[in-house]
Amino acid sequence: MNFPPKIVETAIEEISKLPGIGKKTALRLVLHLLKQENSTTSQLTNALNHLREDVKYCSTCHIISDTTDCTCKTITRDLTTICVVEDTPDVLAIENTAQYRGLYHVLGGIISPIEGIGPSDIKIESLINRVKTSDPKIEEVILALNPTMEGDTTAFYITKKLKEFDVKITTIARGIPIGGELEYADEVTLGRSIMTRTNYDQ
Amino acid sequence: MNFPPKIVETAIEEISKLPGIGKKTALRLVLHLLKQENSTTSQLTNALNHLREDVKYCSTCHIISDTTDCTCKTITRDLTTICVVEDTPDVLAIENTAQYRGLYHVLGGIISPIEGIGPSDIKIESLINRVKTSDPKIEEVILALNPTMEGDTTAFYITKKLKEFDVKITTIARGIPIGGELEYADEVTLGRSIMTRTNYDQ
Repeated sequence: MNFPPKIVETAIEEISKLPGIGKKTALRLVLHLLKQENSTTSQLTNALNHLREDVKYCSTCHIISDTTDCTCKTITRDLTTICVVEDTPDVLAIENTAQYRGLYHVLGGIISPIEGIGPSDIKIESLINRVKTSDPKIEEVILALNPTMEGDTTAFYITKKLKEFDVKITTIARGIPIGGELEYADEVTLGRSIMTRTNYDQ
Repeated sequence: MNFPPKIVETAIEEISKLPGIGKKTALRLVLHLLKQENSTTSQLTNALNHLREDVKYCSTCHIISDTTDCTCKTITRDLTTICVVEDTPDVLAIENTAQYRGLYHVLGGIISPIEGIGPSDIKIESLINRVKTSDPKIEEVILALNPTMEGDTTAFYITKKLKEFDVKITTIARGIPIGGELEYADEVTLGRSIMTRTNYDQ
């Protein structure tokens, strides 16, 4: 008896390369697939191959898409506002709020000297070009980057680069989360939320 | 903007059919794969296709294997003892204890009238044949089934079927788990562990 067999071991090894999936979960998935019809597995593998080989990035906003033009110029959205985000999940998060109807610009990363990622490695140049050449004119650029050192660095760099254009630059509000308690908020967040206080009737 | 694109949605849908994986985890896996080389995805999908199409079940002990003969008749194991389990993960669990060097017999299920699984749907007939025809002779059959109503029913049925053969039938010990506390044990377990008490020097 040779257990687990080679064929199963290879499958377990490949599955457990995925983030958050260990050997035990991988074994469970393998045994699940073995109990299903062959078509379950082939549908899964076809979808993954199709995804990896045929996915495109929109040439304007760099979001993942079926085509190189994600119709981000559609007239049903506000064409004068661009929201700059680090990566695709952020787009999904903002879309889920249903509070934003403008355009997006996915940087595909963030400036991080420690990881060797500079301004030219992410889609900043493309953002500048977009602001420069867009028709209708871009009125506002919202920086929706994570409130980390890297996020702030990137926001600072973009702001500097956009200074020469007549465009309003805003950033998402930082402060105490809805449902949060002052007592347990960290001092930086609390301090900033006092500094950037807003009128009560807003 | 059409987000998430069809191609991504299909992949998310297929991945989230796996047990324990929801839409959010599926999206995370999709974005992970998109950040890796194409070969990462193709290695994964090849392993899965290979697994589903080419995996075999040993014709003797019904364990998953690369071939229809898992060399379960190898002389390095005790050929006179068979441990009967419900499914493959149980084999793995017992192998991990390193306390058992005999053979296995995977039933591939358990008698469950509620789910419409009868004795003929699982590999009981094959177990009887094995005990009847095996050379060297099988001396002991260990029933390592889950301590549930279905497990007990299946154990009872197998015992009845094996009565006519000169074979010792045992079952794994039920009782308080190592490290468990009497105070918190359920009464059935505690009651049974008193009934089946063993001599102290064992």
